[in-house]
Amino acid sequence: MKHLQSRDNPQYKQLLRVAAGKERDQILLEGVHLCEEWLRHQGPPLRAVFDVERLAQSVPLQRLAQHIEPAMGLTLDAILYARLSQVAGQGQGVCFVVNRLSPNLPPFIDGNVLWLDRVQDPGNLGTLLRTAAAVGVRQVFVSEGSVSAWSPKVLRSAQGAHFALQVFEQVDLLALCQRLRVPLVATALEHGQMLYGVNLPKACAWLAGNEGQGVDPALLARADLRVFIPQSDAVESLNVGVATAVCLYEQLRQHHAY
Amino acid sequence: MKHLQSRDNPQYKQLLRVAAGKERDQILLEGVHLCEEWLRHQGPPLRAVFDVERLAQSVPLQRLAQHIEPAMGLTLDAILYARLSQVAGQGQGVCFVVNRLSPNLPPFIDGNVLWLDRVQDPGNLGTLLRTAAAVGVRQVFVSEGSVSAWSPKVLRSAQGAHFALQVFEQVDLLALCQRLRVPLVATALEHGQMLYGVNLPKACAWLAGNEGQGVDPALLARADLRVFIPQSDAVESLNVGVATAVCLYEQLRQHHAY
Repeated sequence: MKHLQSRDNPQYKQLLRVAAGKERDQILLEGVHLCEEWLRHQGPPLRAVFDVERLAQSVPLQRLAQHIEPAMGLTLDAILYARLSQVAGQGQGVCFVVNRLSPNLPPFIDGNVLWLDRVQDPGNLGTLLRTAAAVGVRQVFVSEGSVSAWSPKVLRSAQGAHFALQVFEQVDLLALCQRLRVPLVATALEHGQMLYGVNLPKACAWLAGNEGQGVDPALLARADLRVFIPQSDAVESLNVGVATAVCLYEQLRQHHAY
Repeated sequence: MKHLQSRDNPQYKQLLRVAAGKERDQILLEGVHLCEEWLRHQGPPLRAVFDVERLAQSVPLQRLAQHIEPAMGLTLDAILYARLSQVAGQGQGVCFVVNRLSPNLPPFIDGNVLWLDRVQDPGNLGTLLRTAAAVGVRQVFVSEGSVSAWSPKVLRSAQGAHFALQVFEQVDLLALCQRLRVPLVATALEHGQMLYGVNLPKACAWLAGNEGQGVDPALLARADLRVFIPQSDAVESLNVGVATAVCLYEQLRQHHAY
């Protein structure tokens, strides 16, 4: 692998640009787990970047390095790596530069999918993606006005789920209704049927909304089914990631889809 | 209500101390929702503090103020409030000073309760408390080495669940096993029974663990039952708040406890 030790190196400067989110199509994945998950789902990265000192000491990093073509690998002086990592987040001594996945919208929607309307919190979005991947959902449609799905905090909280899913961003969910070939099912606090009293469709588009305001009323009006999750009145509502998980798992249970 | 306009006022300085977490027994709750939930579950606060300009304009703040004895209320110049709020978090123009609830450990545990072993992420802990309150759990036992349950981020993410629960902190969970009068049930990735193939106890102590390492093995060895949640291999595991919610809701469903 090539070794960089100058902060004026153009390749290093380019890495800093990616880390700072200044390259639209490229993403920096930091940490052993995210990099392993990328390899498992998507194959080789554009670049694999190691802290040269930690690579020398760390068995997990050396194991990762074995999967990298030497021409694709870079090692950095520890001080250069630290500066890169400060921007990106975790500091585990390895990061991958990868192409951001941005699939085209499918012509129609006939699988079991997730629609997210203006979810704001990175931890919530990451958790939603992770749960979706865990139950076998393959497509997640994220509306305009949501947190960016490829931001470092979302990537960290999704733990690699991005790489197993198709995540569509900046989607006009109202317009997307035209492509639906499965029912649209919303979780809602009001005017819904109780989750455990409903035969859930085997495939549907699950619709979950903003942490404070819930789903946009215009979109909610398009739902074929509204369900609510029973709860005590000790709290006003459930976290959106929890509510969605409870619904997705109830669907999995009803259809023995495990 | 008394109005403060000097940053040298001793009462104002005391508020800053509470906001900075320097008073062990007192907590600052920021925002309309948390303050409303405190009133609903716990009654009047020690102090209610308003941004004088926002109070004049905001109906929700005025509605809150109606529940406050004038002698317990304070209004602050906007600039003083902003400085207080910068420390505490949300900036909605109201905060309460309240006593941190720190109940004594019960002599034995015979209800449906939650045990949390070294949960690190504030958002996760808050979500776990919120879900626990939603399913009717009344007691949550948080181990040493966990994030502080009364930190501002946990309070925000729990949305007032703290005030409906008994939250025990710094608990030695291994020692607590002696007080158990219900089964200890752990979520675990290995050597468990599949959640949907088990008759869950009506009351038990649910044990969930650290985000990276799971439950401490010594504690896991004490579990009467281990369950795993089915999932695809697209991701390695579920978020701890999601996994626990799926279990708690499956228990609720099995016992029609809604």
